[in-house]
Amino acid sequence: MPNVSHKGKSMPESPIRKLVPYADIAKKKGVKVYHLNIGQPDIKTPDVALNAVKNADIRVLEYSHSAGFESYRTKLSQYYKNHGLPVESQDIIITTGGSEALLFAIGSTMDAGDEIIIPEPFYANYNGFATASGVTVVPVISTLEEGFALPPIAAFEKLITPKTKAILICNPGNPTGYLYSKEEIQQLAEIVKKHDLFLIADEVYREFIYDEGVQHHSVLNVAGIEENAIMIDSVSKRYSMCGARIGCIVSKNKEVMSTAMKFAQARLSPPTYAQIASEAALETPQSYFDEVIEEYKERRDILVAGLEKIEGVKVATPKGAFYCIAQLPVANADDFAQWLLESFDHNGETVMVAPAAGFYSTPGVGLDEVRIAYVLKKEDLKRAIEVLEAALIAYNAK
Amino acid sequence: MPNVSHKGKSMPESPIRKLVPYADIAKKKGVKVYHLNIGQPDIKTPDVALNAVKNADIRVLEYSHSAGFESYRTKLSQYYKNHGLPVESQDIIITTGGSEALLFAIGSTMDAGDEIIIPEPFYANYNGFATASGVTVVPVISTLEEGFALPPIAAFEKLITPKTKAILICNPGNPTGYLYSKEEIQQLAEIVKKHDLFLIADEVYREFIYDEGVQHHSVLNVAGIEENAIMIDSVSKRYSMCGARIGCIVSKNKEVMSTAMKFAQARLSPPTYAQIASEAALETPQSYFDEVIEEYKERRDILVAGLEKIEGVKVATPKGAFYCIAQLPVANADDFAQWLLESFDHNGETVMVAPAAGFYSTPGVGLDEVRIAYVLKKEDLKRAIEVLEAALIAYNAK
Ligand SMILES: Cc1ncc(COP(=O)(O)O)c(C=O)c1O
Ligand SMILES: Cc1ncc(COP(=O)(O)O)c(C=O)c1O
Repeated sequence: MPNVSHKGKSMPESPIRKLVPYADIAKKKGVKVYHLNIGQPDIKTPDVALNAVKNADIRVLEYSHSAGFESYRTKLSQYYKNHGLPVESQDIIITTGGSEALLFAIGSTMDAGDEIIIPEPFYANYNGFATASGVTVVPVISTLEEGFALPPIAAFEKLITPKTKAILICNPGNPTGYLYSKEEIQQLAEIVKKHDLFLIADEVYREFIYDEGVQHHSVLNVAGIEENAIMIDSVSKRYSMCGARIGCIVSKNKEVMSTAMKFAQARLSPPTYAQIASEAALETPQSYFDEVIEEYKERRDILVAGLEKIEGVKVATPKGAFYCIAQLPVANADDFAQWLLESFDHNGETVMVAPAAGFYSTPGVGLDEVRIAYVLKKEDLKRAIEVLEAALIAYNAK
Repeated sequence: MPNVSHKGKSMPESPIRKLVPYADIAKKKGVKVYHLNIGQPDIKTPDVALNAVKNADIRVLEYSHSAGFESYRTKLSQYYKNHGLPVESQDIIITTGGSEALLFAIGSTMDAGDEIIIPEPFYANYNGFATASGVTVVPVISTLEEGFALPPIAAFEKLITPKTKAILICNPGNPTGYLYSKEEIQQLAEIVKKHDLFLIADEVYREFIYDEGVQHHSVLNVAGIEENAIMIDSVSKRYSMCGARIGCIVSKNKEVMSTAMKFAQARLSPPTYAQIASEAALETPQSYFDEVIEEYKERRDILVAGLEKIEGVKVATPKGAFYCIAQLPVANADDFAQWLLESFDHNGETVMVAPAAGFYSTPGVGLDEVRIAYVLKKEDLKRAIEVLEAALIAYNAK
């Protein structure tokens, strides 16, 4: 029997995958499971997007241009300009989700054996995309104590080798909810400039920012790093359209774009229905976003206040996205997460959380942490926190 | 300025990309261009698929399971069984087009530096997917004289090295239209078994077969190579739904499937709208296929008869898919294809063809060949052949 690839063997599994069978068992026993583990929002997709697909008059469902609809790219560049980002349509390639944009960014800038520095904890699938390309992830640790702020630039400097090709950040962060300050982005700009690296910024949560007067700072807005900056975007969270599978890669670096275009051509085109929905979604009224942001802000406040009240739990208040990392009074969050599903219920209810170790690349770090997503209705979120509190008491009394 | 990757630099460009600007110029001059160069069918997408999307009642457009809708995989396995292929739902992962299925197949079975043997001429994007994975394509030449039949097994044997991991075939073939016989598939089965290789079969044109009594032979139907065989499929051509971006990878090899699943998880899910359309498309009535196949058969017959009448043109009658390779009485088909768009018209009309060199991996082979797709209405196809004939006379009289 022929063997699978070494690369395939070393592809990471999803950090929550091994918990799924336990969740299924809990549900079969009739236990209600609050899913604090997922990044799938429950927010309604804008009608303007859904209706565009309903009303599309299609005779032949054709391939689109490999870079995506011209009309969509033009409107999208206008969207960015309205948000203060200097993006022209030729700086954009529409991709199958932010996921494919990440794959194109890595493939266009890195060869097998090259290194990419990523502040950890980070979005677990960065590991998958890097592994798929034979690229080595070099983590630089950010800590809950520091609120997951950018590690000191000296920590990056120490890790840079001749093989380092890029720094990848997620801003605002999944799983941390951290939002980089203008100064931090500036520091990153200086270091990539100094060492001639790419700065890849995953900004798929750009609009999800909750505090008055706090702004998002895009890598596309830093003068002097136009050739270094690559931005990753997605409609998945912005319009609660995860199933569309539309994102984009954006850069002013023409060589990067023409290289990414070759990857795009090989796979022919991004999905057509989803582009129709995404183009229409640009007409979503501001009131939709105002409501959504207000909703997430209230959820965040409920979650953080609730967690802070639990004995032994530490949390860094997220400034954006819809996740936070919580440190729990347990030795092994993996074991705790499994126990929650396998052996615990509080009046017939339990919670599912994502052990944070899967978001770190350094072994042994974050073992007592979990990622909690606040994608549940406020009432459910409150209940879920009560269940978590009861669970921690029961678990530690074992 | 940081450099793009070596891999990115060596990613091939689409073989017709450099002709596109010339086609645009011809159109601007008011010349009508018959597109014999593309694989985008003009056939109507089945209503049952289009209506399923129109009538879908979606509140939140969510991620699907990374392997695709459970319901779709179940029905798809039934579809295969109805076509005599022993496929269970767990043998299937739904992908974003056959393109992504090819990428997963290569990534799951091959590491950078490994080799894959492919009979040429072959679908040009195999080069792109191999390059993206750092895999070396080792071509084995099939010839127009032999009707693009499978090269002798001895030719494969000669090319096998310790780095060879797989043989990839396209059946029926793009760009050749060749359909492998049962004996040829059996020969391939024996060689992959003997050398412990994977046999990846791109069967996206399985249903497009035009001659009475001639059957398609899938690699999934050969006893003894269950662990070697990987099948690539797609809805793009079957239902004229190229823009959906739905395909699948199918294998009985559990290790391959669990490895491919890790690649699938990293990119989260295939597109949701497109899965709704594809699942519904399984209800397409047989009459639709009967009409479509009859239409393509007539087009094929018109094309082949027309080409054979042109002085100096040689063509191998395609048995399936909707392409053929034609040898032209020109020294350089690349130059001829450009001239057709740049300098020629016949009563205000010209044709666009795909120079075949882009479908060969051996340099210098196929220079006088073009690929012609028969995805035009019969009337247009007839006209296009007349234009091509006039063009060859004019070109050779230069
Ligand atoms: C930080 C981050 N980047 C990228 C993605 C990929 O999303 P998509 O491929 O749906 O655009 C996600 C999804 O959860 C994410 O959290
Ligand atoms: C032989 C072959 N394989 C695979 C594909 C990929 O098609 P898709 O990604 O649309 O399924 C094509 C498209 O033309 C093809 O001709």
